[in-house]
This record gives sequence, structure tokens and C-alpha cells, in this order.
Amino acid sequence: MPERPAGQLTGPVRIVGAGLLGASIGLALRARGLDVQLEDLNPDNLRTASGLGAGVPVTGDEPEPQLVVVAVPPDHLGDVIVAALEAHPAAVVTDVGSVKSGPLATVASHVAADRYCGSHPMAGTQHSGPLTATPTLFEGRPWAITPHTSTSGAARGLVEELVALTGAMPLAFDPDDHDRAVARTSHVPHLMSALVAGRLAEAPEGHLSLSGPGVRDVTRVAGTDPGMWLQIVPANAPAILELLGQIRSDLDLLEAAIRSDDREALEGVLANGVAGTRAIPGKHGGPVRPMASVFVHVPDHPGELARLFVDVGEAGVNVEDVRIDHDPARAGGQVELVVEVARVEVLVAALEARGWAVHQ
Amino acid sequence: MPERPAGQLTGPVRIVGAGLLGASIGLALRARGLDVQLEDLNPDNLRTASGLGAGVPVTGDEPEPQLVVVAVPPDHLGDVIVAALEAHPAAVVTDVGSVKSGPLATVASHVAADRYCGSHPMAGTQHSGPLTATPTLFEGRPWAITPHTSTSGAARGLVEELVALTGAMPLAFDPDDHDRAVARTSHVPHLMSALVAGRLAEAPEGHLSLSGPGVRDVTRVAGTDPGMWLQIVPANAPAILELLGQIRSDLDLLEAAIRSDDREALEGVLANGVAGTRAIPGKHGGPVRPMASVFVHVPDHPGELARLFVDVGEAGVNVEDVRIDHDPARAGGQVELVVEVARVEVLVAALEARGWAVHQ
Repeated sequence: MPERPAGQLTGPVRIVGAGLLGASIGLALRARGLDVQLEDLNPDNLRTASGLGAGVPVTGDEPEPQLVVVAVPPDHLGDVIVAALEAHPAAVVTDVGSVKSGPLATVASHVAADRYCGSHPMAGTQHSGPLTATPTLFEGRPWAITPHTSTSGAARGLVEELVALTGAMPLAFDPDDHDRAVARTSHVPHLMSALVAGRLAEAPEGHLSLSGPGVRDVTRVAGTDPGMWLQIVPANAPAILELLGQIRSDLDLLEAAIRSDDREALEGVLANGVAGTRAIPGKHGGPVRPMASVFVHVPDHPGELARLFVDVGEAGVNVEDVRIDHDPARAGGQVELVVEVARVEVLVAALEARGWAVHQ
Repeated sequence: MPERPAGQLTGPVRIVGAGLLGASIGLALRARGLDVQLEDLNPDNLRTASGLGAGVPVTGDEPEPQLVVVAVPPDHLGDVIVAALEAHPAAVVTDVGSVKSGPLATVASHVAADRYCGSHPMAGTQHSGPLTATPTLFEGRPWAITPHTSTSGAARGLVEELVALTGAMPLAFDPDDHDRAVARTSHVPHLMSALVAGRLAEAPEGHLSLSGPGVRDVTRVAGTDPGMWLQIVPANAPAILELLGQIRSDLDLLEAAIRSDDREALEGVLANGVAGTRAIPGKHGGPVRPMASVFVHVPDHPGELARLFVDVGEAGVNVEDVRIDHDPARAGGQVELVVEVARVEVLVAALEARGWAVHQ
């Protein structure tokens, strides 16, 4: 039998919306021995999620839930949260939507708003259905908890326990602050990536053959299905528009600097970008340590990457990041290993001694 | 003795500018048995490059070069190319600068312009000096060759041989077309990445703790030293400004769509971005095949990545790309393996059978 948690959250937990996030929460809670009740308007989702062991579809005969987790698309969050507060007069209600102020505006005036505490796990993949749900989806990921002014301590405590049970890292945010933070770290980067990628769509024949790793990095997120973004972006319109306005001002400065060959102004824009990349928290939330890249030529067939990483492991060097850039000319790839600057020399020597073609 | 090439390019080759690119070309040509003469205003670069075996510093007593490769910073390209044409009346002259129309404007009116054929290898790293030069820097990379209207066939042929000797993939471009292509695939993505990163520099305390892999991808290139960009961007001003103007128009559309919650218009912007990412040529220049990601939780110490890639290799699945996203909460990382969609099921089953925590 799985170990039952010692806290206040003992279940049952009702999950409304058995998609990827809902079903993954169900699996994580079931693994800790809690009873999970599943609701979804889509019978396929319900069948898949319960088949995976994420919980039991509701019939109307089950005991009242202690906690309701609303995991429906952004457009419906506010209404479904209110419905849950009304249907379950003793339950705490949370949601896992990626924008918090909109749903809160719907809920705040409700007499039971003290039983609502919003939240937002920073997890998810390119999939949206329950088929790829997993109990480890949230392990080690940030999960924002966004109590509002009338959220009760008991409600907040129960949501904190939920987050802890999934293995995620709780981060408390004011709901408006949360929305400004995700506009900056997620929504606006996504939209700007789409604008850059949009310029590629109409490139003249052959021009994109000069694409390197840089443009692939910048445009990668723009390749994901627009689906959920069509609800997320409008839901966070004020925070997004504020940042887009600032980017427009910077674009003005940049264009003027290029037009007049004002290199000091151009350097200001570029240096501000460097400062921004350094402001992103380092690994494990620690300080940013200086990293450097080592490039290795690797034949493009199964087993070669394994051989490389065995050699890297034997060199005792920890790899912080990896990228594979395929040589367009031949069946081979250049693997970029990102390691701490202080470890570069050891790594290069070890790999060269084992016969790899390496450069920095 | 290294095998001497059978073509017209038999040397000596004079390299003007012994930085990363110049010294790497020298190393590649020396490996094919050609005599290489090195010039650089900086005696440290000259000493380092010749010490690495990239060629011999000029003294004035050496034989006339057959080919001169100008590898100096963008601001000086035009003048140094003209000086090379005048100093070596029988030599073909090329350069490796990342913008082609500016230098050509300086050279085009010269009586010896027929002996000039520009080029641009799509290679380079975060380093700029010769210390990290390597003969394999260009292997399998695209290398644009940009003959202008009066370039002689002999000049073009010699530059094509140079490219072939370094192992790069030659791609012919009209000089203006080349500049428009790199504005689209490199310069503008870099500048937009800097604008997004610039918004991070001034984020309120704690907001960046919600940063995920997406914003790191979008802003990665903005973290590189502004140095060379301060010369590249002004040198390609017309092509860059044209694209920035188009992005500004798209930004207008995007802001209007968000302001009026016009989801059809928003979908248009996002769908155009998806189309753009799909337009980037696939691996080895082939068609883009559908890829999917498999996520694996990996303990964060040397050897674990090796163990993972050994298991991936034994599953017989080819990994197209890898990303490591470190869990901020614990000493561990989530590794994203990008593989062909058709191989996902095999990979997941194989990894789970070997005890890895996997999700899609």
C-alpha cells in the first residue's frame, strides 16, 4: 500500500477536467493513496484517465470531496470554479489554469470565495489529452500558488499540500503578479517567437538553407499547436499588451540606432539582452555559473551518442545542457555539450584522448 | 604526408586575419598539405595561430599566394579586400564576412574585381580568437559562395575548391540575396531575441522563477557577447530594417487582435509562426519529418546521462535533438529526447522496461 500523507489533505479529491494536467494530478494522488473522483464532459477523456488509474468517474453516489481541482480550458475556468464552490459547500476549490486574474474576477464576489485558492503548475507538454498523463509530470517543477485577499488559511494550506504531494515546488504569488510574471516569462516570448517564425514562412526559395542553431532556438516554441494559446493570450491581455508596448518602444530605439548607425544605442539594446539572459535563475534556482560549450562531431546512428556520454561520464564532467545540430551535408551531427567553464579543459582532453573530434 | 588535392587550388594560400575563422581555415588547409601564409595586425593572434599549425607568419620573402582569404572584422572587409587585390595582382581574393553587399560595393568598381569572389561559412562559436581554432570547424556546415556579376569563373572555381577542402557544403547565392537570407535566418532572430531578453532584465523580484525551457530557448542567442554584432548589424542595415518593418506590422496586427479579442486574427499570427518553423529545412537538408518529445527524469550526476543514452542506443532509436531542463527543486534534470513520431512508442517502452521515469 502506498504511504498515506500525514497532513490535512486526506481526500477524496475531485478533479474536474481529466486532460493531461487533471489526469496527471489524479495519478500522483492515487500513488499517495488518496481517493480521486474524475469529472469530464468528454467520455473518452474520462475512460482514458480512469483506465490509467487516475481515479474513478463520478456517479453521484460518492462521498463529498475535501478538495476540488478544476483543470478545464481557460475560457471556462471562472464558471466551473463557481459551480464547484456551489456544488460542494464544504470543499476547498483550486484550479490549474495558466492565467489567474480572470477566473478570480468571476469568483471574488462569490460568498464562498474564501474556499478558493488558485494555482498554476509550470508543467505540461505538447500533448493535451490524458493519454500521456504521468504521476511524475510535476516532480521538481515550479507550481505557483495564488491566494487572493479573502482566501482562508485552511484553503491555502490544502492547496500547498496538494502541490507537495505531486513533488512540485510551491511558489506563492499574488494573482496579478503571477499573470505579469507568466506574460514576461512565457506568453510574450511565445508571441515574439511566432513573429520571428512568421518571417520564415515567406522566405524566398533557398534562403532558409542558411538556418543555423540560433534561429531554430528562437523559433522553437512557435512550432507548438496554437490551440490552447488562443485562450491563454486573450485571458492575459492586459499584462501581455503592457510588455508588447515596451517591446515596441525598444524596437523604435533599435530601428533608429540601425538607421543612424548609432553603435552606442545598438550596444545598449544588445547589452540589455545579455543582462536579461543572465537574470534567469540558474540550475536548481542557484546563482548562474559561467558556462561554455564544447562541440563534438558524432556519427548519426544509434549508439554513438551513448558512446559519447559514456566517455563524458568517465571524464567526471557534469553536462548542464546538450544540443544536437545536424550537419546538412552528411549523416552526422555536431553535439554541443554545455558545461561549467572550469570543466572545459578536462572534458576536451578526455574526449580527444578517446578519439572524438572536439572543438570549443 | 597528407593527401594533396587534385584540383586547381594548390597554394600557397594567404590568410589575412588569424582569428577563429582564419586560423581554422589554415588548419584545414594545412591538413590537406597546402602551404598557408598568415597575416594579422595582432602579434598574439599570429603567434597562437602559427603555434597551432595553421600556417607561417609572412616575412615578405614568401612566394606570391594563389588565393587570399580575408578574415577580418566586418568594418574593415572592403578596404582589406581591395588592398589584397592590389598587393597580389595574380591572386584570387575571397573573404569570410557575414555580410556581402557592403564589401562588394567597395570592391566592385576596382579594375581587378573579377578576381574577387565573396563567401561566408555558417560556422563559428562564442569564441573569436584563434585559441579554439580547429580544422573540423566547417565540416558539414553550409558555406555560402557569393560571386558577383564580374567574378571570373576561375575565381569562383578556386573558392569552391577552398570550401570543399574544409569539408563544408557550398551554397551559391547572389550577394544581395545572401544578405537578405542571413538577415532573416540570423540577424533579425538575434535582435528579436535581445528584445525579449531585455524585458527580463527588469523583471520584478521573483518573477523569473517561473521561467521554463521556452523562454530560455527564445533568449539563448541574446546571451552572446555583443562584440561582433555591433559591426554585423550596421553592415546589413537595409535588409534588417526591411524585416523589422514587417515584424512591426505583424506586431500591430497582434496587438489589435489581443485588444479586441479577435481570435481569428490571433490564430492567423500563431499559424503563420507554425508554418515558419516548418519551413526550416530538416535534418541533412531533407524534408521535415514529424518529431515528438519524450521526457525522462535523470539524476543530476556524471554517468546518469551515459546510462540513459546507452539504453536509448540499445532501443535502436535515433535521437534528433536533446534538451536538459534542470529541476529547480532538486538535484536532477528532465531530459527531453526528440525523436521521430513513429519511434516514440518503441523508445518509451524500452526506457520504462529499464526503469526510467518517462513521459511524453
